[in-house]
Amino acid sequence: MAKITPLKGFPEWLPDQRMAELQIIDRLRRTFELYGFAPIETRAVEPLDYLLAKGETDKEIYVLRRLHATEGEESTLGLHFDLTIPFARFVAQNRGQLTFPIRRYQIQKAWRGERPQEGRYREFYQADADVIAENELGLHHDAEMTLLLHEATWALPIPRVIVRVNNRKILEGFYRALGIEDYPATLRIVDKLDKIGAAEVRRLLMEQLHVSAESADKCLALAEIRGTNSSVVNDIRALGMKHEILDQGLDELAYVMDAVRDLPPASVVADLHIARGLDYYTGTVYEGVMEGHEHIGSVCSGGRYDNLAASIGGSGKLPGIGVSVGVSRILGRLFGEKLLGANRSSPACVLVALTSDETRGESAKVARLLRSRGIPCEVHDKAAPFGKQIRYAERKRIPFVWFPHAEGTGVHELRDIRTGSQGPADPNSWMPDASDLTVQIERGEPAPV
Amino acid sequence: MAKITPLKGFPEWLPDQRMAELQIIDRLRRTFELYGFAPIETRAVEPLDYLLAKGETDKEIYVLRRLHATEGEESTLGLHFDLTIPFARFVAQNRGQLTFPIRRYQIQKAWRGERPQEGRYREFYQADADVIAENELGLHHDAEMTLLLHEATWALPIPRVIVRVNNRKILEGFYRALGIEDYPATLRIVDKLDKIGAAEVRRLLMEQLHVSAESADKCLALAEIRGTNSSVVNDIRALGMKHEILDQGLDELAYVMDAVRDLPPASVVADLHIARGLDYYTGTVYEGVMEGHEHIGSVCSGGRYDNLAASIGGSGKLPGIGVSVGVSRILGRLFGEKLLGANRSSPACVLVALTSDETRGESAKVARLLRSRGIPCEVHDKAAPFGKQIRYAERKRIPFVWFPHAEGTGVHELRDIRTGSQGPADPNSWMPDASDLTVQIERGEPAPV
Repeated sequence: MAKITPLKGFPEWLPDQRMAELQIIDRLRRTFELYGFAPIETRAVEPLDYLLAKGETDKEIYVLRRLHATEGEESTLGLHFDLTIPFARFVAQNRGQLTFPIRRYQIQKAWRGERPQEGRYREFYQADADVIAENELGLHHDAEMTLLLHEATWALPIPRVIVRVNNRKILEGFYRALGIEDYPATLRIVDKLDKIGAAEVRRLLMEQLHVSAESADKCLALAEIRGTNSSVVNDIRALGMKHEILDQGLDELAYVMDAVRDLPPASVVADLHIARGLDYYTGTVYEGVMEGHEHIGSVCSGGRYDNLAASIGGSGKLPGIGVSVGVSRILGRLFGEKLLGANRSSPACVLVALTSDETRGESAKVARLLRSRGIPCEVHDKAAPFGKQIRYAERKRIPFVWFPHAEGTGVHELRDIRTGSQGPADPNSWMPDASDLTVQIERGEPAPV
Repeated sequence: MAKITPLKGFPEWLPDQRMAELQIIDRLRRTFELYGFAPIETRAVEPLDYLLAKGETDKEIYVLRRLHATEGEESTLGLHFDLTIPFARFVAQNRGQLTFPIRRYQIQKAWRGERPQEGRYREFYQADADVIAENELGLHHDAEMTLLLHEATWALPIPRVIVRVNNRKILEGFYRALGIEDYPATLRIVDKLDKIGAAEVRRLLMEQLHVSAESADKCLALAEIRGTNSSVVNDIRALGMKHEILDQGLDELAYVMDAVRDLPPASVVADLHIARGLDYYTGTVYEGVMEGHEHIGSVCSGGRYDNLAASIGGSGKLPGIGVSVGVSRILGRLFGEKLLGANRSSPACVLVALTSDETRGESAKVARLLRSRGIPCEVHDKAAPFGKQIRYAERKRIPFVWFPHAEGTGVHELRDIRTGSQGPADPNSWMPDASDLTVQIERGEPAPV
């Protein structure tokens, strides 16, 4: 068969990278659980009806068909492209068995058949935490989710994540105050600001939506506003627009910014050009970028959605708010730049050497004793010369090699392969340092500018 | 929209069940890592070529197609139906970056478009551990994998798993000694013994494969042999057949049975009717059943495959051996029978009560203090009467409710909702028992017979 090459857009990691990924996932899980979010995992597939419920034709969905499908058998299932729609469906489906407000987290893969490029995968991990309430979801949740997103990302061994916050009501109210009718279309154009620039956004607003030059300039002026605290709302008010929805959005944004005032300076910023594309958000919206890696796009996102669950089967209002960390995008970048890794490629802390085929039982017994006390180890495959066995440990960066009843001494000996020091050790009592017992994440230095 | 119903064959668990599942997965991961297996995770999709490489037409594969596929765009990818083929492909693909023998574990979902029934899902979790070597894989790996499979399943809070072992070489050599040429076809028929019974197997062997009545009886006699130690090979030899491959298989089985003699009696048994269907195994094969739940079929399986990796892109011999625990089949059964669960439906150990909207800051501060010391908690959503807040904790079985600056006392008070006892507590120092800090798995009593 031909040489096997990777599939573009479907990243896979080597064992040391996967160990780092698992630790990242463990830490996210830890933060979510500290906040009282309970885990769920939804199936990978959803009926196409649900996936298309919000008319999200910009998402490339993978449709499933059985290889031996009978003729005329319809394809009705697709792989989910995010974790919010499956969660909303799960809530609508299991409503009677859940306690509201529901606090859940969900760390799993999603799929999109998009053209792969840096940071944009066809299969990727997301880590989501959401709250869904019945009827009403207090604004304090917007504050808490902002703190959670900050805390969850800053607990990771990655560059600092800057969270940018906006509120869709500000945009909607502002556009309405300008007399612009098609709010989604306006949003869609302004959302392209980073990609196409201010002049082109201005042109599109005027040509496609017949917005006046003055109004287009106002839209651009709004999109340029940034601020590190709640006084940012004054800058927006200074643009002179008045609308009930705008006022509501400003109050909400001020509340959120006030709630994060004790965080490190500029770790959460108000950024009025954040819109979140075609998504289902209705209020607070988030995007986060990784310092020094802004060009790969947002590494986390989220926001409030007041109508999503109802739109796919819920009765009554089920407002929600959620945050999502793009695990694969973060790791793809950091692994690629060698800025993150694990300090060994095996969970084993000890390689038990094999003196001869006849004494395999001795080596196995040492391994059993070490494992019974929680020390991961493996026995060398073959009774090769010890130099070769040590080199095997070095290649996997297993820190210790154990020599059962070492020749000449008759007692067990242990070698630290990093220092080369070797001495007697008892398999019933020896314990490595905590930093050697488990695999450690290593952060690389950023390349000099 | 219509009422949302579950999709048959795509199991989903409620939060307390998912917490139990995560603990099961954590324990499997723990055992695999103690044995020095390193994690990998492969993409969900494989080229159809690889999935069909072994002519496994009995597996129902899900094929992927982009919803907006251009006309004539071919579907070349399918969801994997196990984790062994993806691992073999991963090894062939990354050979230069891996240290042999490769010890890897992999806990993730697989998909099969089969007709759903009890214990047979279209989407399911598997937990696999495999070793793949270059050129040669010593028989001691067969012994170690048997121990690992026993240890991994007995470390779980589930009924005892009995591991049944056989060796394909015994079957092949035995059939050949009988002069039967079509070994795979014979295997396939004998494999149906449990389903269709001895008389029917006999009939099929004679009619379809033209096996003599005497030979068919010998095949059935072999399939009926069971043993709890290596003396089982004497029972097989007593059937009087002689063949080089048979002898090799008998030696291997005896070696494996000798290696497990210190395990609890009858936890690993030789069972000559285990064949593992059409799979790619070439020597040792495993199947495990859960005591008291044998009718749901095997809950773990595995075996040695000497030619798999080479068949999908590896050059030279890459023999391997692996075990696989059917997490979803085990959990589906135990959840369904209420034999397994978690003792609460939230990771939160404490519900911080909310006295009034004005004092939300006080409650948030208590939560922050508790979280900073590793105690998961949530703040009640609304300033409802305390009785209602306590009932919320009861519904989620959160063990403690915290009253910040409790009315009348001015100090913090903590209530254990199980006993109703309430007293002063300091958010800077209070620590729950370990059994309350984290969610505990609860095992139900089996129903009386």
